[in-house]
Amino acid sequence: MKLNRQVLLESRPVGTPAENNFKVVGTPVREIADGEVLIKNLYVSLDAGFRNWMKEGSGDHILPAMAVGEPVMGLTLGRVVESKNLKLPLGDLLMIRVYWEEYSISNGVDDWFVHLPNGIDAPLSYYLGILGDTGLSAYFGLTDIGKLQPGETLLVSGAGGAVGSVAGQIGKIFGARSVGIAGSDDKCQRLIAELGFDAAVNYRDADDLSSAIGDACPKGVDVYFDNIGGPLLEAAINNINEKARIILCGAITDYHLDEPAPGPNNLFNLSKNVATMTGLMCHHQTDRYDEARHQIMEWVESGQLRSIEYMSEGIYRVGPAFCEMFQGKNFGKTIVKLAE
Amino acid sequence: MKLNRQVLLESRPVGTPAENNFKVVGTPVREIADGEVLIKNLYVSLDAGFRNWMKEGSGDHILPAMAVGEPVMGLTLGRVVESKNLKLPLGDLLMIRVYWEEYSISNGVDDWFVHLPNGIDAPLSYYLGILGDTGLSAYFGLTDIGKLQPGETLLVSGAGGAVGSVAGQIGKIFGARSVGIAGSDDKCQRLIAELGFDAAVNYRDADDLSSAIGDACPKGVDVYFDNIGGPLLEAAINNINEKARIILCGAITDYHLDEPAPGPNNLFNLSKNVATMTGLMCHHQTDRYDEARHQIMEWVESGQLRSIEYMSEGIYRVGPAFCEMFQGKNFGKTIVKLAE
Repeated sequence: MKLNRQVLLESRPVGTPAENNFKVVGTPVREIADGEVLIKNLYVSLDAGFRNWMKEGSGDHILPAMAVGEPVMGLTLGRVVESKNLKLPLGDLLMIRVYWEEYSISNGVDDWFVHLPNGIDAPLSYYLGILGDTGLSAYFGLTDIGKLQPGETLLVSGAGGAVGSVAGQIGKIFGARSVGIAGSDDKCQRLIAELGFDAAVNYRDADDLSSAIGDACPKGVDVYFDNIGGPLLEAAINNINEKARIILCGAITDYHLDEPAPGPNNLFNLSKNVATMTGLMCHHQTDRYDEARHQIMEWVESGQLRSIEYMSEGIYRVGPAFCEMFQGKNFGKTIVKLAE
Repeated sequence: MKLNRQVLLESRPVGTPAENNFKVVGTPVREIADGEVLIKNLYVSLDAGFRNWMKEGSGDHILPAMAVGEPVMGLTLGRVVESKNLKLPLGDLLMIRVYWEEYSISNGVDDWFVHLPNGIDAPLSYYLGILGDTGLSAYFGLTDIGKLQPGETLLVSGAGGAVGSVAGQIGKIFGARSVGIAGSDDKCQRLIAELGFDAAVNYRDADDLSSAIGDACPKGVDVYFDNIGGPLLEAAINNINEKARIILCGAITDYHLDEPAPGPNNLFNLSKNVATMTGLMCHHQTDRYDEARHQIMEWVESGQLRSIEYMSEGIYRVGPAFCEMFQGKNFGKTIVKLAE
């Protein structure tokens, strides 16, 4: 009999998530019924945004808040290892919105899984990072919303994160000046040395973040790719050029607050500069996933774009790795490998 | 000898502008030199945004802050009454960014005037309101940024103001549901009875502004035309639909603050709804002024659109009328007539 180890939400995080908010338990895997499949999860993809569903009363009618004592909702990549469903034969690879767990059972009509796309030869973990929601967000953000042009300045917050690390590199491919904001000198150096950013600002180290951004962006900011929100957004808005485009991709600053923080006090700068701020959710562009993934892989294969993963192994690492994102420990996409 | 009465900035407003911040003085009109023209100002157009330039240290290298003891900067519509400039003959009608004053002298190379457009038969004051920056802002906001569609819900703040009163009416012409936010029950009634709004919310009267907006917009908000900023913007963002468009046209709430107020705490709602917030400055669309003015006049002539003016007379009314905008006394475009 197989054991399914799951990570439960032991308690709701207060502020930044802590390891003791999570607990690993094992339960036997039950027999699958007709129409069902058993999926062995190979990877867990960790995204800071899921912190939101850990709040009491968060969520909506489609995805309610996670319950204390229940498994933590998350994204996995798994393989069908038992099947009583003709449409999902053994060996199929699926990306699933399910739980932090080693095995999942699906009835095959669930909305929350998709097959891995065909026709791309890439390591499986890429589908959770550079070819997944985070890489695609970077791509659609810069193409559809940012409309980044050669010679422009791209500013990226959370530049060492899953989305930011890809966005800054695509900025360079598009002929822009890429400037990153990150939370340590070490990350700033890696952005420049490993990912080709033109400059980087350590926001924890800056006395005056607006001025620090201004120094790093002497021609002003044309496109701001925001993964952080909060004070960084305000500082970026102080530096925008006329007709600037701001991409709101994430707001990790807000995820762990019980009361929402005040927004930027300088929105009038958007008016003055006839600038635009637009929310990005990559699943609104599913019809272009194929195009985007092929383009991204072409850049990866030609050496213009690097996939950066913050990878660890084993179900016991899932909770801690999630917490580390909020501590800024990760560089690149945070993934936990559960099995080969 | 002619006397030019001007309104001086007697002191910088603290908070909401007060009548004693302004003082009328008279000085003789000097002889004009070769190349100059004397303009008799017929109307002063009052816009809340000029409050910004009354702040110490505001403005920029193009338009510095107004100086205490100097005439107040403003927009007028005037007629050339003496000319030593062949390009500006007697009788020419000009819109000028000059001062709150009865007479102005121009050297004819100043950037801050434009001729009234030809080919439109309209009352002169219309060029400061429904055919001026405010009417054009409403038009470009809804067409270029809002892309308002039939059946959608348009929410307008400052709906009794110069821009808002036009925007709500154009919303109806476009087949949308127009909902206004205004500061008194009287204004709300006038929006519905006189301007054809479908519903109106008195923001001073609402216990919970988000809910009040939700009640008035049962299908949510597709386009929010913001002339106010502050807490109204936050409440509106709580009610946006997927792919909503927010037009940032003005932020009268902020103009009289010395320290900028916090912004909306719910920008994440833009992300979730892949919504857009865009700054509007109508002078970025000067190439389309002609098209817009003709369209607006066509609507006016067909009775679909009403020009609403809050008109008073005489140079002594300019300061008080400006203050009244911040008290919410105006309904429609605030104009002071100086001469026939």
